[in-house]
Amino acid sequence: MPLNPALGAVGENAFLALWGERLRRHPAQVNALHESDAELVPLPGTDRLLAVTTDTVAEEIALGFYRDAETVGWVAVAASLSDLAAVGAEPVGLLTAVTLPRETARAFAEGLARGLDAAARAAGTYILGGDTNLADAPSVTTTAIGTVEAWEKLTRVGCVAGDVVYASGRLGAGALPVMRAIGLPVAGEFRPTPRLREARLLAGRASACMDTSDGLVATLDQLARLNGVGFDVTAPLADITVPAARAACRAAGLDPLLALAQPHGEFELVFTMRAERAEAFERYAGENGFAPVRLGVATALVAGGGALRFTGDGAVRVLDGARIRNLQDETGGDLRRYAAALTALLAGSGAPISPPPRAPAAAAPR
Amino acid sequence: MPLNPALGAVGENAFLALWGERLRRHPAQVNALHESDAELVPLPGTDRLLAVTTDTVAEEIALGFYRDAETVGWVAVAASLSDLAAVGAEPVGLLTAVTLPRETARAFAEGLARGLDAAARAAGTYILGGDTNLADAPSVTTTAIGTVEAWEKLTRVGCVAGDVVYASGRLGAGALPVMRAIGLPVAGEFRPTPRLREARLLAGRASACMDTSDGLVATLDQLARLNGVGFDVTAPLADITVPAARAACRAAGLDPLLALAQPHGEFELVFTMRAERAEAFERYAGENGFAPVRLGVATALVAGGGALRFTGDGAVRVLDGARIRNLQDETGGDLRRYAAALTALLAGSGAPISPPPRAPAAAAPR
Repeated sequence: MPLNPALGAVGENAFLALWGERLRRHPAQVNALHESDAELVPLPGTDRLLAVTTDTVAEEIALGFYRDAETVGWVAVAASLSDLAAVGAEPVGLLTAVTLPRETARAFAEGLARGLDAAARAAGTYILGGDTNLADAPSVTTTAIGTVEAWEKLTRVGCVAGDVVYASGRLGAGALPVMRAIGLPVAGEFRPTPRLREARLLAGRASACMDTSDGLVATLDQLARLNGVGFDVTAPLADITVPAARAACRAAGLDPLLALAQPHGEFELVFTMRAERAEAFERYAGENGFAPVRLGVATALVAGGGALRFTGDGAVRVLDGARIRNLQDETGGDLRRYAAALTALLAGSGAPISPPPRAPAAAAPR
Repeated sequence: MPLNPALGAVGENAFLALWGERLRRHPAQVNALHESDAELVPLPGTDRLLAVTTDTVAEEIALGFYRDAETVGWVAVAASLSDLAAVGAEPVGLLTAVTLPRETARAFAEGLARGLDAAARAAGTYILGGDTNLADAPSVTTTAIGTVEAWEKLTRVGCVAGDVVYASGRLGAGALPVMRAIGLPVAGEFRPTPRLREARLLAGRASACMDTSDGLVATLDQLARLNGVGFDVTAPLADITVPAARAACRAAGLDPLLALAQPHGEFELVFTMRAERAEAFERYAGENGFAPVRLGVATALVAGGGALRFTGDGAVRVLDGARIRNLQDETGGDLRRYAAALTALLAGSGAPISPPPRAPAAAAPR
């Protein structure tokens, strides 16, 4: 299947397409490549779908985002469970394939086990088993297995212009480990919460859903490319960003949009809802103790208009999602170069909001 | 749960026990730690069990066992499907988390995809999805997902003294890549076949089952420790070893038992069957085109008797399974040192079969 050119503009999508071309697809698989956070396939003899997803945490360790093995374990579990959440699935359990650093295998394993178990416990699920290996560089691959009623499944596809776009919580917590890794003073440990409970309230209701494992901007950009829409984030950044990330940006003199544009995400869900259902959904969510964060609206694409715009802070900032997402490759894994390049890109994005067209002057009273 | 001391004598078991102590177990999980090749957990709303297993291929690549990325992909899929076979499960599909070498990512991915797809295709199943990462050293973690009727599941536990022990095919093909890696002339590519079809004939019939992913000796040793039995391999080595492995040993002047004692396996199944059912099973297997290889018999443990004996070639060779399995740690990943140490251990194992006690002399005819 040829790759949608909008998807192919992002290096990562183009590379992943290689797998899609070379690996035969399961004939009953529900999702196409790129179209969901977890793989969905009918579960023989039931009305449910099996939802499965696998993720490796390795580059994040090498880049110094996590200070200890316990954080690595927590994030590895949260990342996989977040993918289950994004398809609306309930977890059956997890598997973990662990590559321990040769020199400190036992100590690393102890911390890892604490983090894996704590994150599984917090989500009400279990590590079913795994595999242990030794190598020079540590890495953890976690697989989550879940199930979802076929009619309730969520995918990344189905959003249309006019849909309201939400996040399951405030965004930007994923920026904190990155800021610490480049030497900025950041307190606290990274303990993201996969939004499994909230996902159950979205299942069968949201028009599209994807987690922010790569940060908000990459998530919106991917949803835009998959659905042929744009997104206007109309909420002020202060209303949608976690205070700690905003404070860290302010203290470092950084553009607060950086916290949402960098690619280390926080595992919130970004989802869309038909405009006519938005009010009822917000009420239903509220009754169930869930306060979604309204980001803005999906828009029709206009030639030259820009697919991704932030308009909540007195300027129209148009972001080039492909440029931003390809920056990592271009800066070859050097974090400081990456941060500088992203800052420069964002600095070029601002344009003051042009005043609204004047209403025709009312006929002056005589 | 304290570790069975027989299991704990093997360093790998002792290390894995760490996970068992620190990770809460799923309350409905069918298998305990060590007791099956795949994790088994009830599938909500069905009479079936979910069978899941994850395996990383990394050390084997670092040790030079596989000459190309295609072989890596094939083995990664075969290893995980073999674990499904060993519990009697039918595959739903596979996930693969791939860490590509930074410098040659695209070429490696191309070869890998060919191998992954070919092995999945040969087994009639599919790669459902995965995750792609970059690092200095390549590795592939493959997860297989399958299902099995609860009453048909196979585990490593259930064998008793007197059971007949079989392999699903001749053994020792796993030794060939190792022999090539230490410089011996070995032809052909390593393309092990997971025994999914044969497993369906064993499901609900075998008393215990485990795959030879770590070679025959480690497999029999683990089954012995888990079940509190010993094993006498009464078949001549020539009858149970693949001809190529036997020929390679002969050409290199090596003990032919080395091909079955080294730890890189061939993904056959080793299984046991109650003695009174053995004949009927062999007939049933034969009618279905499956010719199991009879290895010998499970024995009661006798103090000082040795749990693992090879008696088919004119001598009783008693192997110390724990010593053999711990050799890898002791030789620190150096293949030539390992091969020399294993050769020395095997050389000490032989004892000529003592002549059978003389029958009382018949009364001489007068």
